[in-house]
Parts: sequence; structure tokens; C-alpha cells
Amino acid sequence: MAIEASSEQTREPRIRLGMVGGGAGAFIGAVHRIAARIDDQYDLIAGALSASPEKAIASGRDLGLDPSRTYSSYREMAIREAKLKNGIEAVAIVTPNHVHYDAAKEFLKRGIHVICDKPLTSNLADAKKLKKIADESGALFVLTHNYTGYPMVRQAREMIANGELGDIRVVQAEYPQDWLTEAVEQTGQKQAAWRTDPAQSGVGGSTGDIGTHAYNLAAFISGLELDSLAADLDSFVPGRRLDDNAHVMLRFKAKGSEKPAKGMLWCSQVAPGHENGLMVRVYGTKGGLEWTQKDPNYLWYTPFGESKRLITRGGAGSGAAAGRVTRVPSGHPEGYLEAFATIYTEAAHAINARKKGKAVDKAVVYPTVDDGVKGVAFVEACVASSKKNGAWVKV
Amino acid sequence: MAIEASSEQTREPRIRLGMVGGGAGAFIGAVHRIAARIDDQYDLIAGALSASPEKAIASGRDLGLDPSRTYSSYREMAIREAKLKNGIEAVAIVTPNHVHYDAAKEFLKRGIHVICDKPLTSNLADAKKLKKIADESGALFVLTHNYTGYPMVRQAREMIANGELGDIRVVQAEYPQDWLTEAVEQTGQKQAAWRTDPAQSGVGGSTGDIGTHAYNLAAFISGLELDSLAADLDSFVPGRRLDDNAHVMLRFKAKGSEKPAKGMLWCSQVAPGHENGLMVRVYGTKGGLEWTQKDPNYLWYTPFGESKRLITRGGAGSGAAAGRVTRVPSGHPEGYLEAFATIYTEAAHAINARKKGKAVDKAVVYPTVDDGVKGVAFVEACVASSKKNGAWVKV
Amino acid sequence: MAIEASSEQTREPRIRLGMVGGGAGAFIGAVHRIAARIDDQYDLIAGALSASPEKAIASGRDLGLDPSRTYSSYREMAIREAKLKNGIEAVAIVTPNHVHYDAAKEFLKRGIHVICDKPLTSNLADAKKLKKIADESGALFVLTHNYTGYPMVRQAREMIANGELGDIRVVQAEYPQDWLTEAVEQTGQKQAAWRTDPAQSGVGGSTGDIGTHAYNLAAFISGLELDSLAADLDSFVPGRRLDDNAHVMLRFKAKGSEKPAKGMLWCSQVAPGHENGLMVRVYGTKGGLEWTQKDPNYLWYTPFGESKRLITRGGAGSGAAAGRVTRVPSGHPEGYLEAFATIYTEAAHAINARKKGKAVDKAVVYPTVDDGVKGVAFVEACVASSKKNGAWVKV
Amino acid sequence: MAIEASSEQTREPRIRLGMVGGGAGAFIGAVHRIAARIDDQYDLIAGALSASPEKAIASGRDLGLDPSRTYSSYREMAIREAKLKNGIEAVAIVTPNHVHYDAAKEFLKRGIHVICDKPLTSNLADAKKLKKIADESGALFVLTHNYTGYPMVRQAREMIANGELGDIRVVQAEYPQDWLTEAVEQTGQKQAAWRTDPAQSGVGGSTGDIGTHAYNLAAFISGLELDSLAADLDSFVPGRRLDDNAHVMLRFKAKGSEKPAKGMLWCSQVAPGHENGLMVRVYGTKGGLEWTQKDPNYLWYTPFGESKRLITRGGAGSGAAAGRVTRVPSGHPEGYLEAFATIYTEAAHAINARKKGKAVDKAVVYPTVDDGVKGVAFVEACVASSKKNGAWVKV
Repeated sequence: MAIEASSEQTREPRIRLGMVGGGAGAFIGAVHRIAARIDDQYDLIAGALSASPEKAIASGRDLGLDPSRTYSSYREMAIREAKLKNGIEAVAIVTPNHVHYDAAKEFLKRGIHVICDKPLTSNLADAKKLKKIADESGALFVLTHNYTGYPMVRQAREMIANGELGDIRVVQAEYPQDWLTEAVEQTGQKQAAWRTDPAQSGVGGSTGDIGTHAYNLAAFISGLELDSLAADLDSFVPGRRLDDNAHVMLRFKAKGSEKPAKGMLWCSQVAPGHENGLMVRVYGTKGGLEWTQKDPNYLWYTPFGESKRLITRGGAGSGAAAGRVTRVPSGHPEGYLEAFATIYTEAAHAINARKKGKAVDKAVVYPTVDDGVKGVAFVEACVASSKKNGAWVKV
Repeated sequence: MAIEASSEQTREPRIRLGMVGGGAGAFIGAVHRIAARIDDQYDLIAGALSASPEKAIASGRDLGLDPSRTYSSYREMAIREAKLKNGIEAVAIVTPNHVHYDAAKEFLKRGIHVICDKPLTSNLADAKKLKKIADESGALFVLTHNYTGYPMVRQAREMIANGELGDIRVVQAEYPQDWLTEAVEQTGQKQAAWRTDPAQSGVGGSTGDIGTHAYNLAAFISGLELDSLAADLDSFVPGRRLDDNAHVMLRFKAKGSEKPAKGMLWCSQVAPGHENGLMVRVYGTKGGLEWTQKDPNYLWYTPFGESKRLITRGGAGSGAAAGRVTRVPSGHPEGYLEAFATIYTEAAHAINARKKGKAVDKAVVYPTVDDGVKGVAFVEACVASSKKNGAWVKV
Repeated sequence: MAIEASSEQTREPRIRLGMVGGGAGAFIGAVHRIAARIDDQYDLIAGALSASPEKAIASGRDLGLDPSRTYSSYREMAIREAKLKNGIEAVAIVTPNHVHYDAAKEFLKRGIHVICDKPLTSNLADAKKLKKIADESGALFVLTHNYTGYPMVRQAREMIANGELGDIRVVQAEYPQDWLTEAVEQTGQKQAAWRTDPAQSGVGGSTGDIGTHAYNLAAFISGLELDSLAADLDSFVPGRRLDDNAHVMLRFKAKGSEKPAKGMLWCSQVAPGHENGLMVRVYGTKGGLEWTQKDPNYLWYTPFGESKRLITRGGAGSGAAAGRVTRVPSGHPEGYLEAFATIYTEAAHAINARKKGKAVDKAVVYPTVDDGVKGVAFVEACVASSKKNGAWVKV
Repeated sequence: MAIEASSEQTREPRIRLGMVGGGAGAFIGAVHRIAARIDDQYDLIAGALSASPEKAIASGRDLGLDPSRTYSSYREMAIREAKLKNGIEAVAIVTPNHVHYDAAKEFLKRGIHVICDKPLTSNLADAKKLKKIADESGALFVLTHNYTGYPMVRQAREMIANGELGDIRVVQAEYPQDWLTEAVEQTGQKQAAWRTDPAQSGVGGSTGDIGTHAYNLAAFISGLELDSLAADLDSFVPGRRLDDNAHVMLRFKAKGSEKPAKGMLWCSQVAPGHENGLMVRVYGTKGGLEWTQKDPNYLWYTPFGESKRLITRGGAGSGAAAGRVTRVPSGHPEGYLEAFATIYTEAAHAINARKKGKAVDKAVVYPTVDDGVKGVAFVEACVASSKKNGAWVKV
């Protein structure tokens, strides 16, 4: 096996972590827990894992939590942990969207750092209030736009920031899936049920669940800010209450004297043949980049007028930004969980710096409450534009 | 080498063919000539190959034409060939767009079949007039939307027509290129010069040159009719007079009681890393299909709920529509020229049937003047929508 | 995000783990530690991390080990931990090859389970002795042929075991790399230095480091047993003392009345363009399978006479064997660390069953000391055959 | 459509061509005819298309041949055409292998150029005699190892000849197919019947039909000469009389003081999932190249220590050798028929030069009778080695 030294971090004491949501049967809770373990920066010691007391207790037991640290309400957990000498320093919130706001508030106001699943909240008003609370709290707020943790996504962002693509002209983003091609929400599938329920998800269906990821990643990679959008949303499946397909045209803000960049975004839950087909492609005056989650260890790069190149994670041409979030050598693929773990580890760097009263290293990057507000604004703008027959709406 | 018998056709007498445009240095003229030769259905015997008499003569000599059949004007050629006992039966028109209308008219009105490059004309008024002339002429009008000749494109169309995808919901089409990333039209590059000149190309730049191909192919494959579109066009390169990038949202007409399908189309001449990246993806209630010109012998097919399949030209799962336009066995790739040849051969089938007073076999498929009118209407609708800030425009 | 419930395991008490080797700067030690953490089945509590006492202490501190559990010799660690009430139950051995035998012996004879990096030992005599010791010890011996942990490798194995490929005829295995294209071992690169040193690696270079992986995986997937091989080994880089390229022809033992299967194996450290290009392809009377580590979440399957299918981890057509070692839903890639983690988790299942005096679930699969003996025998047979000018050698 | 001028050739009078074999139902005859037409360098005017007089006449009529130029024996054709003022100048021989020798002889000795399908003959003795006849005849002998006509194969050959890969160390060639996975020769399939019949094919099955292509291409690209080989051949399908799978280790002759290169070759007709999976990979001290017929317009190139590059036909990085055999611009795929046409056009260049008494341009490249002798020698060496249990055999 070929290799340089790993990126395993020098030891800081592990951060004491709690979790809200993520009881038995939840998908994303388990993902957060693995992500928190991979780089060994956290100890999960407390949880309000379910709104159902029985399920909360059973889930805590399954995870090996001390029963005294298993709560049946997040508010109770926030209050008690804040008082404990060895109470949690950070909390992961992994509930359906509509709970994010209230749960996050309880921890933030007690100075407990929040690592929250996306989208930030189920509506923009809550998102803005939460931003205010977070900003005033002194605690960190980390949003798990996990795709920003992929090393080759970092590579793409660094290349564009370094000007290797010149002025950016076009950004094409898409996130097609097929799992909601039929009305599975009507068959009791839990994951489908809450994602298609406006009360739990907010006004966006595919836009909120995956479109917001595509938008976030396009902005993260390109370094551009969205100005306005025109959207055409559909609920193709009979009886579905939220959009399951969205076509969106994008106009970005100009950078300096450049002509503003344009883009398109497609997200769909009804596109058979796509599992989680997140893809971002960026084109500038000097070159183009293509990245897709299907093969996340690769980045296609074409300097204009030269052959296309396949930059691999850890391979030749892969730079510092990718390198610092890489664990294994080139040719040994990393995946979704490692990218997710990177968000947790970036958060740990920030938390540890704060504990020492030091500034966070500039290389540390993670999505914040600001990205969360933008994401919810994107969803609401999509819905608003679509209602106005695709008129351009400022974001 | 593994194989069944080839698709070589039983002999009909070769059709006498003339050509307008396509003198030395022209790209597409040579392509048409190879295409006409591949299946041996034509004899090229006359030409008005250039508007410059000297170049016309030299080009005719290069091609081995009888000097008495080399003309310096297409009008002269139409008049004289129509009178000759062994005059041309069909003419290929391969000039820049703005010449198509007048040249085609001269041949059609003399009963000579026309095989014309796309787009049909440089404006919609001409297109409609030409359609009228063609319809009244008794001669055939074949438009070389050559991508419709790829066997796996035929396969996709057949599968959808057979209902294998169920009701179509989403169509994603794109045709990115990178050759106009810089202002090569200002350096004397002939191909770039006329394509970026409104006087020769019409109102559409990338939309007319390649967007119209993507639109035609999306409609050909999906069997859907476009209802309206919303477009955002840009000329990113300073000084360029026509669009070099277009983002278009599509709404198709409903079929029966189905919810109307939606789509997106992206065409670009400024996307580094793309040569001729034509791709069409179609998603329905029962499955999805993906085809791209980069690897034209493959068609990706996902029946909803099953594994993705790679249907290969001539391989298992490849049906009659692909089979009748296939020349070599599976695993031996066919390409662009063969697809182009198929248009010529389909035209020959139609011409030969007409000569015998027989109906054309239903399996014979080629783009007509109607497709040409639609293509020009598409370009004008894109320009109109973009001028109205992306408002929906009926096509 | 689309999904069913995760495969997170119901809680057993974590297994107390020690580590031999893997101090600062070592690649594979960090990989083992992450692998042990991912599914949360182990607590790393002791280590003899380096033969250098200073480095051992520093590395233990970096990992947060209790200083009293940091040892400067594995023998000392084995003796003391075996006596402690809460001593380690299992040990991971991640040193260069020549240390495996002696270190493993110390733990096995004290009843401590061993999880050992491959190849088993640096020569076949040691391998056989170690097998005897392991068999008599009552402790488990797990060899980290980590590629056997990939879900789609399990899928391939299951399909073949179920007869979906019919009788196996041909197995093509390869593992090309390029990192030793030049004589980096002469520049002080530590990873290269020990891998090209017969004293530390044994008689095999590329054969021992990666050929043995390819061989193990080919056997694991195909379910076949190797009978004999003919090998042509080279050391292309001037001054290199061990093979850096090997071409091997394989003859497998017949199963029942079937004609024996044949195969080829290529491993290389001097093939520019390959990072860790492990690939196994298997062909039988009813179909073919192809898997490559470059895109480990995919398995290509062709039922003879039908279209090729892309089976994805967690997707349609992916069965029970893959499912039980899958953590995240289809379309969210898993990678090398997850596959490695699966070996650790399978080991945990076996250890936990043993602790309870229960039989290990039949679905649990991991490479054992027997696979280790076979691997070393493979390497020695390659070297012996090559010395005899490629004569067939029984394995 | 983007483009530079095409490679259409300046006009020479078309070469008068005859054909032996290739009557109705034959695959390869139709391929040769299309190939001869694509670049318009030949007129097919005579044929001995079948050994059956009725079929010969019917096939000639189908192809539009003058009945007086349709022969029922190639000998008769050779004798008469040689005397005609406008008799054929060249003949294409497209029969089963065992006819090649005698048919070619008849034309060569009358000074008619021969374009012959591979393998050259069904045994080495004939091959050597035919070489002598060809050398003494003054006529050209062109062997249609058609894969040497692919532009990216030419590109690979040029890069290696230019030293861009440094000293070559390893060559991996393969040509797997699946069409003989079952005993179709026993069902009357004509293509299978003669290919598995020693009387018509010679001693090699897969080795003669496709292994010889892989060997030829590996030598063509690498510029290396084979010294010896060790082979393990199988006939997996019960009742099959010739090999349907071959594993071969290769040793090339040293060039200067370099260490001799090594290689492997695998050909198979029983590998489900492969249609015509010809692939050649070459690795040297400075870089690696990979080419596969599945996607023939691409060449993967890795300069050691840099990112892998995708060189496309006609794109950046594609040089003169590829450019002169390219017809359409990058991004518009060419295929098998165009590669085949290139052999015909190269032959036309050579024939035309000879007619003018001029030397052939050095850039013109085509396989000759020498390549044919080497190919038959390769097949006989494979069979001989396999009979000696895989001992090394000089070629």
C-alpha cells in the first residue's frame, strides 16, 4: 500500500457531545454519530433521541449512553446539561426540519455549540431569528452541508479562488434522485412521509431536501453569490403536497467588473436511474471543472485549450485544501461518511480554538448559520418564483 | 470478429446528387459527401460548391466532377440540371444558414429533392415560406438533424414510443462546447466568423447552431411537443454579437390526461472541457434513459426499481428501430459519420419509394421541413423570451 | 436524503483493544484506528506503538492513551495486559511484515485475539508455525485483507456462490500501482524503504504487498481454490531488490466435474497512471462480473445474453451479503475506510459470540490465518516459479 | 458545429478494385466495401463473391456489378482481369482464413495489389510462402489489421516513438468477447462455424481470430518486437475444437541497453459482458497510456507524477499522426468503419505513389505481409507453448 502519513490529528481532549433526534430507525442520526467518531474528536454522552420517551430510553441504551443522560425532551437536556460540570459542550440536531429552530435556540442560549442538519429551519422567518440568536449567543453554529467536506470539492473551491478558471461564467448544478418516483409517502415510509409533509419540512420538497444542497455546493465551489432566480416547480406524483422536481435558472452577483455569471439548477426526486446524483460544473474564461458525488474522489479539470485532466484525491495536482481533509492515500476511495466527518472535525477545530481563546485557523471551513439562512431563502424564492409563473425573484 | 449479417441494402440504382456549398475548406460539405457514400445510395455528379467561380471550379475538379456539371451559381445549376435527361434528382445544401431559403426554393420548385443542413433558415418568416414551397412542390425536403440517425437515439425513441418509460415527466437536454470560449471570430477563423454573424446565421448564436440540435433531439426521442419556453441568453465573450450560452426552461404539451412534462435545455459555446457534449436524458413514471454523443453506442436505461442497464448498439436489448440503421456488430463502435449517413439513406429510401410510386416504409424516419420550422421557431422564441427577461413564450 | 434505516449495530460492550506498531508517521496504523472506531465496537486502550521507547510514549500520548498502558515492547504489553483485570481482549498488529510472526505469537499464546495486517508473515515457514499457534490458542486470528469488506465484493461473492454465474471459467485479477516507478526507496521514503527490503518484507515485493491482495480477493469472490501458478517477475527499477512487477498465470482446482477455471494476475508498482487499481473480473457459463476499487460502490453484472447491469451498493439487485455491511444508502459512496471497518466489525461479531459461548452467525465473514498461509504460499510460489523460468508450481 | 477543415483527400483517379468472398450474408465483406467507399479512393468493379456460382451472381447483382465482371472463381477473375485494359488494380480478399493463401497468390503473381483480411493464412508454412510471393511480385500486400487505423492508436504509437513514455517496461493487451460462450457453432451459425473449424481457421481459435489482433496492436503501439511467449489455452465449451480462451505471458526483445519489456495478453470468446473489448495499455519509465476500442476516440495518458489526461481525437494534445487520419472534429466520434477506411486509404496512398513511381510518404502506415507472418507465428507459438504446458517458446 502506497502512502504518506495520514491526516490523523494531534490529540485535543474529546468534545462532549449530545444529540437531539436520531433514535432507532432514523437514518441521518447514525450518519452523524459515525461522522463524529471517525476522527475521534467527540464523545457522545447525552441524547434526547426521540420525542417518544420509551423510544428515547431504548435508543439511548442501544447507544450505550448513561441512562441519566438520556432525556425525553431536548429542552430538559439543554437545561440540565448546561448545569452539569461535565455537561455537553456541543449538540447535534438531527430531527426533521421543523424542530431545528426551537431545539437549536434552547442550546444556543445556554452557550452550547450547535451542529445542525440542513435545511436550517422550515421557514425563512425562523431562519433569520435563529441567526440572530446564534450571533448573539457566543456559541458556534455549524450546519451539516456535508458535501462541502469532500476533498475534491475543497480542491475545486481552492482552484477557483486561486483564479485557475479565470472569471466564472456558467455554473450548472443538479441533484437528481428517484426514490420518490412513486407515492411511497402514502405507504408509511417514514423518511418519505416527513419529507413530503409541509408541516415538518416547510414549503420546499425536493428544493428543501436536495435543491438546497446543490445550491449550497454551487456557491461554495464557485465562490459566487446568488442574486436572483426563476423557478418552475412541479409535484409530479399525484397527491404529493410538495415539489418533487424543480427547474431553476440562476443569476449570480457580478464580481468587480466581470459580466455576472449565470447558472441552472435541477433537483428531482422522480428521475429514475439517479440515486444521489449531486453534480456541480463550473466554467470560466480559463477553464472548466466537473465534480459528481457518484465518483467523489475525482475532479475533472480542463484548462482551456489543453487536455482534460483527472485530478484524484491525494494524487498529483491535488492541493493543500484537499490535502488537509484527506485521510487515506490516493487510489483508496473516501466517501460520504468521511466528508461528513470532515464537517465534524472542522467544527472541532473551531470549538477547540474557541476554548483556548485562539483564532480559528483560516484553513478551517464549515457551513454556518449564514449559509443556513441563504438555503432557506433559496427554497422560499423557488416557491415564490414558481407561483409567479417563473418570474425572477431576488434571493 | 463476431457477427450477424450487415445491414447493407439491396441495390437500387444510385440517386443522382448535386451539392450547393461545400467547397474547399468547408467542414460540413465533406461530411455530407462521406455520409452520402457510406451506404452507396448516391452518385455526386454536380455542384455549385462556392459563390466564388474560381473556387467552385477548383473544388469541382478536386471532387472529380465533370467540369460541365460544375456551376458557379445554384440557380444556374437548378435550371440546367432540371432540364438534363440525367440531371440531378436531389441536392444537398450545405451553405451558411442565410442561403438555405433561396437555394432550396430554386430546387424544390423544379421538383428536385432537397437535403438541407440545419437550421432551416435564418428567420422564421423564411422558414414558413419554405415549408409552403416544399409542401406544394411534390419534392422531398430532408433536414440533416444528423443526431437523429444514431442507432441508440432510435432505440431511445422506440422505447419511449412503446411506453417503456411510462408517462414522461422530465426531459433534460444539453449541448455544451468550448471552441468559442475566446473571440476566435475576430481572428479570421471562418467557421467561427459566420456562426457569430447575425447576417449569416440569423438571430441565434449557440441557440441556432447547437441549441436547435438539442431541442430537436429531445423532441425526437421523447415524442413530446414543446408548448412554451423561458430563456436566459448571454453573449459572454466581449464583442460577440450573438448568444454563446443559453439557459432554457421547457414546458411540453400534455399528452392526453397526463401532467405535462417539463424540461431544461442548456447550450453553450463557452464551456471549457466540452467538445460536442450533446446529451439527452428522459425520465418517466416507469423508468429513465440517458444518451450522450460522447459515447454514442451506449444507452443507459433504468427501469424504475431495477438496476441500471447499459444497452449497446447491436447488443442484447437493442431493438428493431436501432437494428435497421446499424452497420456493424455490437462492440465495434459506429460514429458521427454513420449517423449522418443514416439520414442520407433514409432519404434514399423515401426518394426510391416515391420513384416507384410506393408508400414509404413506416420504419423510415428523417427530419423534415416541419422540424426545420420548429427549430427556427425555437431559436426565435429563445431570443424573444430572453429579451422579455425570461418570460414564458409560446413556441 | 433518501433512505432506509442504517446498519448501526445493537450495542455490545466495546472490545478492549491494543495496538502493536502504528506510531507517528505510519500510514496503516491510523487506518486501523479509524476502522476500529467507525462502527464503535472497540476501545483502543493500550499500545506498543513503536520499537523506539521515546516514539512509543509520544505516540501513545498523541492518541490519548493512559501512559501506564503505553509499552515500548509488544512482549511486555502481552505479558502485562494478559494479567490485568481490564486488560486488552484483542490486539491489532500493524508493523512491517517481519514482526508479525513473533508479535502475534506473544498475544495468541495468552489468549488475546489478534487482528493482523497482511501478509501474514515474511516467509511460509513462519506462516505455518503461526497457523499452528493460532489454531491451538483458542484465540481468534483475523487478517486484514480489507478489500473483502467492500459491500460490492460481498455482493459478487454471494452471486457466484448462488450460482448466478454458472460454472466459473476465467478469473482476471490485477493490482497496478505507480508509486515505485522511480527508486524512491533510495531517497529515504519510509513506506518504500521497508517494502523493498527483503529483511522486512520477505521474498516478495509487489507480489507480497499487493499481489497477495489481488490473489486473496480473486479467491474470495470466485470461491475457487488455486492449484498452481506460472509467474514471470521483474525488478524494473535499477537497484531494486524485490519484484516490482509480476505476471502470473493461474490454474484453479476443479469443482466437481467442471473443467478447472483459469486465470491471470498482474500486479505492478511501476505502472504510471494507476494509484491502487485493484480489479477482479470473473466469467462463468451464465454471466460475468467486474469490480474495481476505483469505483467500489458499483458492480458490473452481465447475465449472458442480456444487457450489462450496474448494481450499486444498496441499490436494486444488491442482496443480503452486501446489505449487512452497508452503512449509508445507495448513491452515497462508501470507501476504503468503511471496508476496513467491516473487517473490524466482523471480528467484533466473532469475538462477542465467543465471549457468550455462542456460534458465530454464518453471515459473518473475515479473512483468517488460513488465508494468511495461502497468501504467503502464493508469494513464495510466484518467486519459485519465476526462478524456474515460469514453470508451473503447485501452491 | 465546430471545426477545422476536413481531411478529405485531393483527388487521384479511383483505384479499380475487385473482391474475393463477401457474398450475401458475410459480415466482413460489407465492412470492406464501406471502408473502401468512405474516402472515395476505390471503385469496386469486379468480384468472385462466393464459391457458389448462383450466390456469386446474385451477390454481384445486389452490389450493382457488371455481370461480365462477376466470377465464380477467384482464379478465373485473376486471369481475366489481369488481361483487361481496365482490369482491377487491387483485390480485397475477405474469405475464411484457409483460402487467403491460394487466392492471394493468384493475384500477386499477376501484379495485382492485395488487400487481405487477417490472419494472413491458416498456417505458418503458407504464411512464409506467401511472404516470398508477395516480396517477389512487385505488388503491394496490405493486411487489414484494421484497429491500427484508429486515430488514437496512431496517437499512442507516435507518443511512444517520440519517447514520451521513456523506456517501455510493461504492455498489457486483451481482447475479450462473449459471443461463443455457448456452442453456437453447433446451431448452424455461419460466423461461428468456420471460426471454430480447424480446417478453415487453422490451429488457432480465439488466438487466431482476436488474439492476433491484440498482439498486432500491442506491437504496433509499443514499437516492440516479441521475443517469446508462454501460453495456456483452453477450449471451455464442450465439443469445441479450437481454443476459446488464451492466457499468454510475453517477453519482448530488448531495445539497446534497456531491460526487456514484459507483457500479458488475454483473449477470450467466453467472457460474458464483453463484446469486442480490445484494450492495450503500455507503461514506461516516464508515463503510461491506455486505449480501448469501447471508447476509441479517447486516449488516457499519464505523465509519471502528473494528473491523468484524456486526449481526444482531434482535441488538444492530439498530434500529427492522428490528425492525418481524422475526418471529423473532436467531439464527433469516429468508429470502426472509419478506422477500417483508413487502412484502405493508406493502401491507396501507397498504390498511387507506386503508379507514379514515387516513394510512399513516410507518414503512410499500414500492416503488411510481414505483420501477417508474425501474426500466424504468434498463433502457432501459442498453440505450441500450451502443448508444452506453457513453456516459453520463441516467436
